[in-house]
Amino acid sequence: MNTDEKADTLKQATSRLQIERANGVATIAISNPPVNVLDVPLMKELRQFLLSVREEPDIRVLVFESADPEFFIAHVDMTLIDDPHAFDDFVLETPEGLNPFQAFGELLREQPQLTIIKLAGIARGGGAEFVSAADMVFAAVGSAGLAQCESLMGITPGGGATQYLSDRMTRGRVLEVILGADLIDAATAERYGWINRAIPATELDDFVDRLARNIAALPEGVIAAAKKAVRAADLREGFRRENEAWAGLFAQPAAERLIRGGLQAGAQTRAGELNLEGLLRSLKV
Amino acid sequence: MNTDEKADTLKQATSRLQIERANGVATIAISNPPVNVLDVPLMKELRQFLLSVREEPDIRVLVFESADPEFFIAHVDMTLIDDPHAFDDFVLETPEGLNPFQAFGELLREQPQLTIIKLAGIARGGGAEFVSAADMVFAAVGSAGLAQCESLMGITPGGGATQYLSDRMTRGRVLEVILGADLIDAATAERYGWINRAIPATELDDFVDRLARNIAALPEGVIAAAKKAVRAADLREGFRRENEAWAGLFAQPAAERLIRGGLQAGAQTRAGELNLEGLLRSLKV
Amino acid sequence: MNTDEKADTLKQATSRLQIERANGVATIAISNPPVNVLDVPLMKELRQFLLSVREEPDIRVLVFESADPEFFIAHVDMTLIDDPHAFDDFVLETPEGLNPFQAFGELLREQPQLTIIKLAGIARGGGAEFVSAADMVFAAVGSAGLAQCESLMGITPGGGATQYLSDRMTRGRVLEVILGADLIDAATAERYGWINRAIPATELDDFVDRLARNIAALPEGVIAAAKKAVRAADLREGFRRENEAWAGLFAQPAAERLIRGGLQAGAQTRAGELNLEGLLRSLKV
Repeated sequence: MNTDEKADTLKQATSRLQIERANGVATIAISNPPVNVLDVPLMKELRQFLLSVREEPDIRVLVFESADPEFFIAHVDMTLIDDPHAFDDFVLETPEGLNPFQAFGELLREQPQLTIIKLAGIARGGGAEFVSAADMVFAAVGSAGLAQCESLMGITPGGGATQYLSDRMTRGRVLEVILGADLIDAATAERYGWINRAIPATELDDFVDRLARNIAALPEGVIAAAKKAVRAADLREGFRRENEAWAGLFAQPAAERLIRGGLQAGAQTRAGELNLEGLLRSLKV
Repeated sequence: MNTDEKADTLKQATSRLQIERANGVATIAISNPPVNVLDVPLMKELRQFLLSVREEPDIRVLVFESADPEFFIAHVDMTLIDDPHAFDDFVLETPEGLNPFQAFGELLREQPQLTIIKLAGIARGGGAEFVSAADMVFAAVGSAGLAQCESLMGITPGGGATQYLSDRMTRGRVLEVILGADLIDAATAERYGWINRAIPATELDDFVDRLARNIAALPEGVIAAAKKAVRAADLREGFRRENEAWAGLFAQPAAERLIRGGLQAGAQTRAGELNLEGLLRSLKV
Repeated sequence: MNTDEKADTLKQATSRLQIERANGVATIAISNPPVNVLDVPLMKELRQFLLSVREEPDIRVLVFESADPEFFIAHVDMTLIDDPHAFDDFVLETPEGLNPFQAFGELLREQPQLTIIKLAGIARGGGAEFVSAADMVFAAVGSAGLAQCESLMGITPGGGATQYLSDRMTRGRVLEVILGADLIDAATAERYGWINRAIPATELDDFVDRLARNIAALPEGVIAAAKKAVRAADLREGFRRENEAWAGLFAQPAAERLIRGGLQAGAQTRAGELNLEGLLRSLKV
């Protein structure tokens, strides 16, 4: 790809992803109405994209954003509780020692490109884990929110959060996020180390676009060298503990009652998701 | 215990602890006038409570607060310098490789319940170490203060602080806390990672009460699973170094002179404790 | 040295360092006009001072500041690209497994004295690495700035930054600092954990002077005990990765073109250094 081509914007779309390539940056807008639930089709499209873009040396930075201003990724599809075989394909391709959700996060964490999340809405559960698996996160003051609210469904996070968060903030804050299970705003997420920075909402696009373009313009080899020198933590032993903790709870009747009860009370609808924590707390175990 | 019983508040008191149990939360108010010095009787009552409450599965969260609005725990009783055998009982029950003060902190850190400190006044020395050994800490803006002021007594912290703080903040900040030996306010303690959050003083009770009740209401097994997945750091090697550093200094004449001099100048009185750092700095080594 | 002598201020100067000794504190002002470039003579004088002051037991705290209000240390001398043998002397004295720039930082990190940086101006590249190797850093709001802008020269940091920063802040922030390559202000540096605190510019001198004097006044052995208990991280394996990443890029033509291009465009002049990032970004690779 020569310089003139780089100046062009190439557009591509799958069912749930709108992808633009320009100046060495691929911007991926997630669109899975009504609230960007992380269902099996969305996971497959994201995985397929991550694997295929590895073969594009001219794309140096990936920026993930949402087509929905209120939701980045709601969380993993709760209806999967009725579809135990939905992940069979994923399991086949999951590395030894990881569950499929952990493997999904690790795929992003191992991406050769520099990965950035532009977070303007809410990301909970597996959506928040996707955020934490990226190299950098910038979030809009006032509108962005992050939560690991799995405990309100009777489980602990099972897709990497217990380890990703422990790599970013003190144990006391990890326990507060996981057991307090409140929606964390951008300013608090910055203070806790969950994200790089909270940015005024009107400046978020410009801030991330400039940063992504600057990084994509660096001489060849610099991103790879930085990623090598600043090595990602080895979290395998922690993933094993996380999966044991999660799987033990997921098999309990409380988890099934809370997940089914949540769906009946409005989870995965726009209204229900705006205050999902309140909805889940109102359920009787 | 059925739901109706949970709604009731059960009150209990030992000489130095006022304990209330309600909704799965035990709230322990420390009362050891005049300034909540951590003396041998208080350590024994706290240890006895921590060990016995382990056998109460219906109590899921422990909240520690102070009956004194100005002092949470002043620090370890300085008069112990005249009573070398005061800790003989503790030593017998101290695990291999820990000194009695480290073992006291580790007891709290290994509690199966989720432990929260509601910090409205001052905690120094061994009192600050008790705070740091808890799972979460919330502190009142304006009134809370934390200090490791041992260096002003010619020693370094010996009850876990060098390791607990290293697990929470950068080495430069740990050295500042230990060698600068100033009283750290709630906002700075939050920025440094020492505590979870600084909370406006008028909101601290409601904030902690809500969080504690929410966590206690989680389905059975969730707290244990989260504590297992987000494992506490193994600090044994650091405790060994900490104890060596502390014990070497404690045996020096400067430590004895400063501790006795501090007591003569008003340490462990209410007036002296309000500015203990100033009092100790005014002593001549 | 008796108490009366301690009260005196002893002044000493080398070509590039102005050194004052008073109250157990040595204050070292760096003066290497026009912008305090870290050239071979400055590195030699700093190394010589660090080694010789180790033999002065009455000096317990070292405070580094700059004689130039705008620049602390600009960065390593870019003209060294034309003088491949300039570091031959250093290489001879470099410990196995470290490159000369890493060895320079480690010399500071292993200093028996407590080392403090009083940062009122800009420190980039190797200058920022010198800052990060110190025990504590306090920076002036409004005037202090830190940058690892090596990526704009086609390389990654090679004098410790990839490891020092990883010891202080989350990986996402380290990657932002290194690949975003922007000048970071004091407030952001504090939030990221790079420095201890951002201090209002008019209070910086008094804050650091009081802290340094307080620490120097502690009883003998306390600083050493604290440094022993709060052990500095072992970064050898990371230094090896950092050096590999750096050396691989330094051998590429892009690095040479950018470094020579930067010098031609005004790097290492006062005007050019005030916005070095802009100057380097304007170059064509």
